[in-house]
Amino acid sequence: MWFDTPAVRALIDLALQEDVGIGDHATLATVPAGAIGTARVQAKSALVVCGGPVFGLVLRRVDASLDVECCVPEGSPVTAGTDVLRVRGPVRSVLTAERTALNFMQRLSGIATLTRAYVDAVAGTGARIADTRKTLPGFRALDKYAVRIGGGVNHRSALDAGILVKENHAVAAGGVSAAVRAARASAPHLLKVEIEVETLADLDEALAAGAEVVLLDNMDLATLREAVRRCRGRALTEASGNLTLDRVRAVAETGVDLLSVGALTHSVVAADLSLRIEGMR
Amino acid sequence: MWFDTPAVRALIDLALQEDVGIGDHATLATVPAGAIGTARVQAKSALVVCGGPVFGLVLRRVDASLDVECCVPEGSPVTAGTDVLRVRGPVRSVLTAERTALNFMQRLSGIATLTRAYVDAVAGTGARIADTRKTLPGFRALDKYAVRIGGGVNHRSALDAGILVKENHAVAAGGVSAAVRAARASAPHLLKVEIEVETLADLDEALAAGAEVVLLDNMDLATLREAVRRCRGRALTEASGNLTLDRVRAVAETGVDLLSVGALTHSVVAADLSLRIEGMR
Amino acid sequence: MWFDTPAVRALIDLALQEDVGIGDHATLATVPAGAIGTARVQAKSALVVCGGPVFGLVLRRVDASLDVECCVPEGSPVTAGTDVLRVRGPVRSVLTAERTALNFMQRLSGIATLTRAYVDAVAGTGARIADTRKTLPGFRALDKYAVRIGGGVNHRSALDAGILVKENHAVAAGGVSAAVRAARASAPHLLKVEIEVETLADLDEALAAGAEVVLLDNMDLATLREAVRRCRGRALTEASGNLTLDRVRAVAETGVDLLSVGALTHSVVAADLSLRIEGMR
Amino acid sequence: MWFDTPAVRALIDLALQEDVGIGDHATLATVPAGAIGTARVQAKSALVVCGGPVFGLVLRRVDASLDVECCVPEGSPVTAGTDVLRVRGPVRSVLTAERTALNFMQRLSGIATLTRAYVDAVAGTGARIADTRKTLPGFRALDKYAVRIGGGVNHRSALDAGILVKENHAVAAGGVSAAVRAARASAPHLLKVEIEVETLADLDEALAAGAEVVLLDNMDLATLREAVRRCRGRALTEASGNLTLDRVRAVAETGVDLLSVGALTHSVVAADLSLRIEGMR
Amino acid sequence: MWFDTPAVRALIDLALQEDVGIGDHATLATVPAGAIGTARVQAKSALVVCGGPVFGLVLRRVDASLDVECCVPEGSPVTAGTDVLRVRGPVRSVLTAERTALNFMQRLSGIATLTRAYVDAVAGTGARIADTRKTLPGFRALDKYAVRIGGGVNHRSALDAGILVKENHAVAAGGVSAAVRAARASAPHLLKVEIEVETLADLDEALAAGAEVVLLDNMDLATLREAVRRCRGRALTEASGNLTLDRVRAVAETGVDLLSVGALTHSVVAADLSLRIEGMR
Amino acid sequence: MWFDTPAVRALIDLALQEDVGIGDHATLATVPAGAIGTARVQAKSALVVCGGPVFGLVLRRVDASLDVECCVPEGSPVTAGTDVLRVRGPVRSVLTAERTALNFMQRLSGIATLTRAYVDAVAGTGARIADTRKTLPGFRALDKYAVRIGGGVNHRSALDAGILVKENHAVAAGGVSAAVRAARASAPHLLKVEIEVETLADLDEALAAGAEVVLLDNMDLATLREAVRRCRGRALTEASGNLTLDRVRAVAETGVDLLSVGALTHSVVAADLSLRIEGMR
Repeated sequence: MWFDTPAVRALIDLALQEDVGIGDHATLATVPAGAIGTARVQAKSALVVCGGPVFGLVLRRVDASLDVECCVPEGSPVTAGTDVLRVRGPVRSVLTAERTALNFMQRLSGIATLTRAYVDAVAGTGARIADTRKTLPGFRALDKYAVRIGGGVNHRSALDAGILVKENHAVAAGGVSAAVRAARASAPHLLKVEIEVETLADLDEALAAGAEVVLLDNMDLATLREAVRRCRGRALTEASGNLTLDRVRAVAETGVDLLSVGALTHSVVAADLSLRIEGMR
Repeated sequence: MWFDTPAVRALIDLALQEDVGIGDHATLATVPAGAIGTARVQAKSALVVCGGPVFGLVLRRVDASLDVECCVPEGSPVTAGTDVLRVRGPVRSVLTAERTALNFMQRLSGIATLTRAYVDAVAGTGARIADTRKTLPGFRALDKYAVRIGGGVNHRSALDAGILVKENHAVAAGGVSAAVRAARASAPHLLKVEIEVETLADLDEALAAGAEVVLLDNMDLATLREAVRRCRGRALTEASGNLTLDRVRAVAETGVDLLSVGALTHSVVAADLSLRIEGMR
Repeated sequence: MWFDTPAVRALIDLALQEDVGIGDHATLATVPAGAIGTARVQAKSALVVCGGPVFGLVLRRVDASLDVECCVPEGSPVTAGTDVLRVRGPVRSVLTAERTALNFMQRLSGIATLTRAYVDAVAGTGARIADTRKTLPGFRALDKYAVRIGGGVNHRSALDAGILVKENHAVAAGGVSAAVRAARASAPHLLKVEIEVETLADLDEALAAGAEVVLLDNMDLATLREAVRRCRGRALTEASGNLTLDRVRAVAETGVDLLSVGALTHSVVAADLSLRIEGMR
Repeated sequence: MWFDTPAVRALIDLALQEDVGIGDHATLATVPAGAIGTARVQAKSALVVCGGPVFGLVLRRVDASLDVECCVPEGSPVTAGTDVLRVRGPVRSVLTAERTALNFMQRLSGIATLTRAYVDAVAGTGARIADTRKTLPGFRALDKYAVRIGGGVNHRSALDAGILVKENHAVAAGGVSAAVRAARASAPHLLKVEIEVETLADLDEALAAGAEVVLLDNMDLATLREAVRRCRGRALTEASGNLTLDRVRAVAETGVDLLSVGALTHSVVAADLSLRIEGMR
Repeated sequence: MWFDTPAVRALIDLALQEDVGIGDHATLATVPAGAIGTARVQAKSALVVCGGPVFGLVLRRVDASLDVECCVPEGSPVTAGTDVLRVRGPVRSVLTAERTALNFMQRLSGIATLTRAYVDAVAGTGARIADTRKTLPGFRALDKYAVRIGGGVNHRSALDAGILVKENHAVAAGGVSAAVRAARASAPHLLKVEIEVETLADLDEALAAGAEVVLLDNMDLATLREAVRRCRGRALTEASGNLTLDRVRAVAETGVDLLSVGALTHSVVAADLSLRIEGMR
Repeated sequence: MWFDTPAVRALIDLALQEDVGIGDHATLATVPAGAIGTARVQAKSALVVCGGPVFGLVLRRVDASLDVECCVPEGSPVTAGTDVLRVRGPVRSVLTAERTALNFMQRLSGIATLTRAYVDAVAGTGARIADTRKTLPGFRALDKYAVRIGGGVNHRSALDAGILVKENHAVAAGGVSAAVRAARASAPHLLKVEIEVETLADLDEALAAGAEVVLLDNMDLATLREAVRRCRGRALTEASGNLTLDRVRAVAETGVDLLSVGALTHSVVAADLSLRIEGMR
């Protein structure tokens, strides 16, 4: 399963090391050693489910005999009170792993839930909601997976998986035009060159130099509309900057192709999930 | 310096591995190989500064010749436009490390900023704002540091650094009283036993069994006030559940000792910081 | 199973890497590739069994098809000649993993055996035998587990899982009283503050400042008896320093609550265990 | 410096992770943030010094600005009260790293001290004291270094660095003779073949089959003397089994070449060392 | 410096762990402990220099006091007998690290040398020489760097840094056309879609479906020429399959844009380099 | 199974991390999520099969539900078109792991194929073909395994698993004789001492000093023949330097015991293997 990568395992191991130490005293004191039980993970508010398989990886990393079953498919919108996962196995192991596993899943479901809200807000405009590289350290693959589950699309996954010329690069290269030309000259042949611009003048320079995608940063709606017009048939357009849920539909209606929203991964509200032991013997 | 622990280094390495790949094509194309420059990191909105030394660790992990200077002490509240860090060294290295370093610092400053808001909201009541174990996987030490920088206090750092008997434990043990007694009997002698209760009846049972701290979960203000009264001189009190900024002062005024807020670390809004190259030669 | 933590796995991997290299020439030369066999691990002298599950982890890390069965429960006292474990599977794998697996188990059984001797020595006095942080690097969780299996209790598991103010801290803080007060002011609310004292004068100062536990270091029996008297109802008492098996009962009879013995983990005599292949086909 | 290998660094990192957690509350409470001081590590009883450079590695891993100076060369026998190391730098860092660093050095000095006692006990006989593979998991290179510092010699460092045919191998191969021949046939050309024998009959068989070294296990003195006589000019001899300090000289006087002693590394008494802060500002 | 990534460090650590063990007996026996010396690394045949900084990383990982100076810039073609690096520092450290460091540098210089031969062979045709993902496990970034140093260009660096639809994908998708359409529909917006085709019929289908790059695999020269003609102005062309040095110019003259050569990294002849100690005191 | 060591797993993890990133876009776009299929790995030219179990490890690291079956035993010579492995399981997982798994197996089969050619070339002479420490970083155990599978023998596996005094050591020790004597004096008792010599004068000095093995480097056939004559009954002989397939038989016929060939592992031509999906549902 794709979640089970070396990087994700390393992160799970870090998380368990920092939380478990020599063991969970409360659990050892109150739960008999051999007790087997069932538990369920329930949504406490409306949310889009994401990260069930990662929850399972964490639990089975603590105890390979634990059994985790997803009650709803990844990406399902659920209401408060819905059962999301069922767990069965040694109760001590479940309670030891619970917090770490929920910390993963509450973040991922939070990302999926927020992404879905953005996607719904622009429904029908043809614009797509994209993430950024503002993911949490160690969470790149997981965060971007949650964005896809929420209906968004992924911007480049890493510095070497796409070329985005930003303002600092343009300054270093001696201007927008020089930067675009330098980037195109050395770009690996499967990567497109995108450049960030803030004015229509810069946009014109970028298009003339052969930019394949333009990032229209922090433009007002009128400017954005004009920028989109100038790019038609020449370059793909991406808008960014201050894309709150309130404002995002208006921006989408300018005709821009993509809306990239850092908040999808840098300012996540954890989805509310809790685990309850249901039976024990 | 305390930040530079094996666990934090492992997280930084994971973050750089997932972001850098074989290198940053845009930077290699636009910045000359030997270029040395200065950059500053600036606050784009009001925030409490936190994580400057971690920013430095990331940059120096990419290039040990980079020099990072903190312009303001950790924990300083700053306004939009304030310079927070100055960087000097090879420009290619700065731009390669920028995003990963900012991803750390924007989270930590976000935590410190939110914590400060909570601390300010309860000023004068005597109540303290505490974090929880709902930190991001891999971020335990960093997240809890940011809470302290924001003026909060740390709840237990790990499962073995405090005993918190939660509802699932009480059920497994056969009730509040049995759970508290079992926990006290096996508790290492430097750890106190805390138990989560939701009703006054459970509270009385917990106190009778010798609980040293009680977690009063999701109680209304009147019940909380009564609970605090019953605990006076017998146990420390901690309130949790739905502690929004709006509501937190009223809860603090019930006389509770601690307010634990999961949102401080599980629902962080990234602080707005950006890096700009200022000079290059 | 709790043994199977990321830290223990990392230690097992280090151990196998340093021992196995490109393989065991003697085994490759003398044992046919497909040979399946049974082996038993036997006690060669009287000992308290500890570490069977860790032995199994090491063997299965080398070859997941190996089957390891514990013949007696953890913590069982056994006489010389008793079978402790039975192993079944590829003989080459058993012989390759044997030394590393025994190195773990002989240490853990050695700790359990020594701890049991201390616990027996103080039987009936009400005093408990505790370990310290003088565990072997990498063995914290394993060493402390072995102490529990031997009937002892665990002192704090890490620097952040209890507050112990030692002589160097008191000097830095400007005295016993200042140190205790500083520690209490900043202590997380689930941690108690313990202070090390060597004289009755320091003890009085510590109690006055609110110490919750006192470590009575290297006191003679008369002083210890007086110290215990002064602490009654005010603080828990722990004795340390020169607690040989000969002397430990006399110390316990002073009424002290805990006796902490560094030797339990820093000066372990390996328990005598050996593995013998019994059948092969 | 040779100590600073990837494996030793990994072990130091494991040790710090398990001990430090989110930090040392006692130190943070009592030592001012910027305090710089000096400390010395002193022998509390007579011992052979070993591991000073490793102590330094641990301290500098916690804080690269710490300065550690060895007062006496590795391998020096010192009396109680001798200063062994001097440390200078941030006091908080010293106290945070102290226990982990001492845990390493007390073990290594303990090994060197015990080895020296064995070496002295056989002085003049021509026999050498050798270690075994019964080192602690993760400590192979460190433990064997300490044996050399104590005047002993190293047996093979790993399974692939020498061929030792033990009883289990001989049984698997169908006898001593078959085992020796199989081992010689496949031995890499820089490795000698040693075989463990318990009787003179087996010894004769081993010599006839071409064993280059024989391990004479658990023989009484008369048998050992006869075995040594038979090996003269034909094979190197190594004695093992029950080699207590009391008995080792008598065994050495049989003329055996090597005495291998598992206890040097599997049953170490920690050398008594302590760290004291001397000055602070 | 870009070489010093977490992944490269991990590989260096693996390499030192597998080679050094408890140390280099020959060096310890023959080189005095404090000896400082100079050494040079010399080309023993004509080659393109690559990997000097990595050689330095390995040496300094063994001993941070070693000084390594590159005598010629990366990418320089040199003749047999040319000095490539100079080293100064403890001789024991140099000899311990020598083999591992050379193993890295001989591979990288071998790649650069072979790449340069291919680049020279197609000089003037306008075609570029590209690598593939057939790099050695662990060497992705290093191998691709060496290709650039040799004058080649990099194909995608990882599975997520470009979209290459191969025969297995087309079969799974139900044909070339379906595969290209599916890939374009889900491609991140900075990635182009390339498809592997073996016939002109498949090529036509691919172009009609909107392929942006085509990989013309194992075509004869006439077919390749026709394929290039059909792609003109519609798609970039890449040839692969059996591109020996003998044949590569003829292929380049068909007008194809890129020639991708797996052998550049999967079948490397190590460049001949040796290290000699020159002076010692 | 012996392949599955901590070091090999670490290398596999590095390889997957550098290749997979956030996933394989082409596969995700074209292969349905639940598709199960069979695939076969086929030889595209004549080769000696090696590394099937490692291929399996890589595939199962990506997806533990994959089933890999070796169609021919390790070491089998096969002709072009022979099926070597069969795979069954989720098609997405197979295609994601394919390149990394093949990169391992093509190297190992390449080594085995080349070794077999050397072994065949010297058939009947009594000389053995040996590898060197010129293995790829991270591949020591794997490369040496492939040499054995190809019919060769392994030289020392690491610096501490044999003593080879090279020219730099002899210079440091003050000559061949001094170097050999120093090495013999400190050699662990299971290791032989080998010395590299280039002239007959040095050879005589080495033999007189007690060298047990001599490495005759870069000698012409006549000198080599004379050297072998002088060593008869006194030392084992190893030839090295310029041992091409053309020349190796003539060298073997001088009567030398071993021929060590760096090219077996430092200049490997990847064996030609490819994977094809055969059925999918």
